[in-house]
Amino acid sequence: MSHDKEIQILISKVREFVNARDWEKFHTPKNLAMAIAGEAGELVAEFQWLTADESALAALSEEKIRDIRLEMADVQIYLLRLADVLKIDISSAVLEKMEINESRF
Amino acid sequence: MSHDKEIQILISKVREFVNARDWEKFHTPKNLAMAIAGEAGELVAEFQWLTADESALAALSEEKIRDIRLEMADVQIYLLRLADVLKIDISSAVLEKMEINESRF
Amino acid sequence: MSHDKEIQILISKVREFVNARDWEKFHTPKNLAMAIAGEAGELVAEFQWLTADESALAALSEEKIRDIRLEMADVQIYLLRLADVLKIDISSAVLEKMEINESRF
Amino acid sequence: MSHDKEIQILISKVREFVNARDWEKFHTPKNLAMAIAGEAGELVAEFQWLTADESALAALSEEKIRDIRLEMADVQIYLLRLADVLKIDISSAVLEKMEINESRF
Repeated sequence: MSHDKEIQILISKVREFVNARDWEKFHTPKNLAMAIAGEAGELVAEFQWLTADESALAALSEEKIRDIRLEMADVQIYLLRLADVLKIDISSAVLEKMEINESRF
Repeated sequence: MSHDKEIQILISKVREFVNARDWEKFHTPKNLAMAIAGEAGELVAEFQWLTADESALAALSEEKIRDIRLEMADVQIYLLRLADVLKIDISSAVLEKMEINESRF
Repeated sequence: MSHDKEIQILISKVREFVNARDWEKFHTPKNLAMAIAGEAGELVAEFQWLTADESALAALSEEKIRDIRLEMADVQIYLLRLADVLKIDISSAVLEKMEINESRF
Repeated sequence: MSHDKEIQILISKVREFVNARDWEKFHTPKNLAMAIAGEAGELVAEFQWLTADESALAALSEEKIRDIRLEMADVQIYLLRLADVLKIDISSAVLEKMEINESRF
C-alpha cells in the first residue's frame, strides 16, 4: 500500500456504506453538491455567534471542538463521495488549484 | 513515509502557501468556516440549473468537469486549512463519523 | 400607513425581538451573513434527496411544506436583520438588481 | 393597493422576468433552494476576511456596501421566487417563525 492511498481508502469506506444501503440512486452529483452545501451551512453555524478570538483553538471547549470536528467530517464525507461519483482525484485537484493560486497571488 | 500521510502532505503544502503570504492572521477558524461555506456555495451553483441526468458524469462536458473539480479543490483546501488550524485529524474524524452513521442507519 | 411598508414592519418586529434580548452585540454584519448562509444550508438540505418532481408543490406533504416554509422564514429573518443593520432598502435593492438582470439577459 | 402588497409586487416583477425568458422550467423548488444557497455563499464570501469591526456599516466602503447590497438582492430574489412557486406567504411565515422564537427564547 503506497503512501498516496489515504484518501482512496476513505472513499472506499464511504462507498461501501452507501452501497450496503442501496443509496447510490440518491447520490447524483447534483444531490451531493447540495449535501456539501448543507453540511457547510451546519459548520458555519457552529461559528456564527463566536468572536474571532472565541473561535480560536485555545478558546474552544472540548465539546465544541468535538461538534466542529464531526461537522467537518460531514463536509469531507460528501466531498469524498462526489469525488468518487465523478472519478475526480482530490489530491491532484488540490495540487493543481494550489499551483493556480501560486501563480495568482 | 507511511501510507497515511497523503492528507498531511496536502495540509503542509497549503500551510506553506499561507505562511509565505503572511495570511495566518486571516485564518481564524471562524473565517475558514465562512470560506468553506462560500466555496460550497460556488460548487452548488455549478449544478443548480442542471437536471439530475445532466449532472451525471457521462453527461458533463470536459470543461464543466474541470470547473467542478476546481470548485471541489477550493472546498477541500479550506477544509484542510481549518483542520490544520484546529489540529483536527480529518481521516480519523471521517472514520469516527462513519462509525456513528453505521450505528444510526 | 402606505403600501410600501410591509418589509419595514417585519424589520421592526425582528429588531424589537433582538433588542428585548440584548442580542445586538451578536448581530455584526459578518455574523448575520454567516447566519444567512447557515439557514440557507438548512433550506437546501430539505431538498437534497428529493428528485425535481418530488420537490414540486403538488408532490410535497403538508408537513414538508411547513418545514420548508419555516426554513425560508429563517433565511428571510436574518436577511431583514442584515438590511436593518446595514440600512439597506431591500425592495429597492431587488428592483435595482432586476434592472441589471433585464439588461444582461 | 393595501399596505401589505410590497412583497407581492416584488414577486410579480420577478415572475414576469422569468416568464419572459421561459425559465419556469428551471425553477423547480429544488433548484431554487440551490440558488439561494449559492447566493448566500457569495454573500458570506463578501465578509469572510473582514474582522467584526471592519464589517460594521461605518467601516465599509461605498463600493463594498454596493456589492453586499446586490448580493443580498440575489438571495432575496430567489427567496421571493421560491415563495411564488410554493405559494408561500413570506410575511406570514416570518411572523409565525417570530412567534415560535418568542416562545423559545
